[in-house]
Amino acid sequence: MKLLEDRIREDGVVLAGDVLKVNQFLNHQIDPALMYALGQEFSRLYKEEKVTKILTVESSGIAPAIMTGLLMHVPVVFAKKQKSSTLNGGLYTAKVYSYTKQVENTIAVDTKFLNAADNVLIVDDFLANGQAVTGLLDICKLAHAQVAGVGIAIEKSFQKGADLIRDRGVRLESLARISSFEGNKVHFVGSTEND
Amino acid sequence: MKLLEDRIREDGVVLAGDVLKVNQFLNHQIDPALMYALGQEFSRLYKEEKVTKILTVESSGIAPAIMTGLLMHVPVVFAKKQKSSTLNGGLYTAKVYSYTKQVENTIAVDTKFLNAADNVLIVDDFLANGQAVTGLLDICKLAHAQVAGVGIAIEKSFQKGADLIRDRGVRLESLARISSFEGNKVHFVGSTEND
Repeated sequence: MKLLEDRIREDGVVLAGDVLKVNQFLNHQIDPALMYALGQEFSRLYKEEKVTKILTVESSGIAPAIMTGLLMHVPVVFAKKQKSSTLNGGLYTAKVYSYTKQVENTIAVDTKFLNAADNVLIVDDFLANGQAVTGLLDICKLAHAQVAGVGIAIEKSFQKGADLIRDRGVRLESLARISSFEGNKVHFVGSTEND
Repeated sequence: MKLLEDRIREDGVVLAGDVLKVNQFLNHQIDPALMYALGQEFSRLYKEEKVTKILTVESSGIAPAIMTGLLMHVPVVFAKKQKSSTLNGGLYTAKVYSYTKQVENTIAVDTKFLNAADNVLIVDDFLANGQAVTGLLDICKLAHAQVAGVGIAIEKSFQKGADLIRDRGVRLESLARISSFEGNKVHFVGSTEND
């Protein structure tokens, strides 16, 4: 998606360790019009899939997820991050390891909000090692929900997350796919503008 | 706002200790069309105010805030909750006590995203004791930003938050104002449907 690639080129900041900072428009300050455009694109890509629910994880997945839900006319559920893995009644939980923060979190969804009648579109802002999305897939499995696919704003294609998802037989659509960083430059998969 | 009051009557669950659970449509599962309607209302109420930025706090403030930002054509900034109050360079921070969870959090906003040229509309899902909004007001003060006002989805008018905000001379607009609970019934300020 050219709009998103252009915005990453313009406002993204590449830090040491292949970290891309996009807090200018995606995960601290948010550009609502851009989120709406992402929602339009996810909605277009998955329009044949009879999606019943959007699933994401707090906090930065919420903005693109809510726009997708608005445009697909379905509810959005966000998994909550919990410190402990204490089992609570009435929750589907999954463990998610954060490579960035080097901590393991438990994410949880109330069993009321996901069930076997659901066909879920998972939406998130970032895909790197795929831990968050894998946790969301685990939660869908616990709920016996179908998964229509995964929609990601920014994928770091050189990390293992994309393969992890495809290995599970799940459709993945990422709107900007980063192949590599070079200094402060971002190269995208299949882009001709890798100057 | 009748639409929101009706939804609270229909799907809200009153728990012990005057806790209203609205995780069916606001803070776990989210109804995007309702969030859009809240955004329309905040946008209408503050349309004369030359708002430059929406400020909220993760996570459940993000959905109504992003719709308000979309409709007012301004960026949204969400304050991040941090465990420690360790001073980090480049952040405006405020302490926020959560009565529900009985913990003190620090909320933080990158100094890049708020400054003296801003006229801020603070948006949040809930107003009870006013700790989160007070923290956001403190952050605006640190940034020397103007505050156009505060927009709240659900206000518990019998708790102290609303007064705390008005005592600071800040305009407050709450779309559903709860005067009391009676068993599982919710009474609203000024509503004629308190049956």
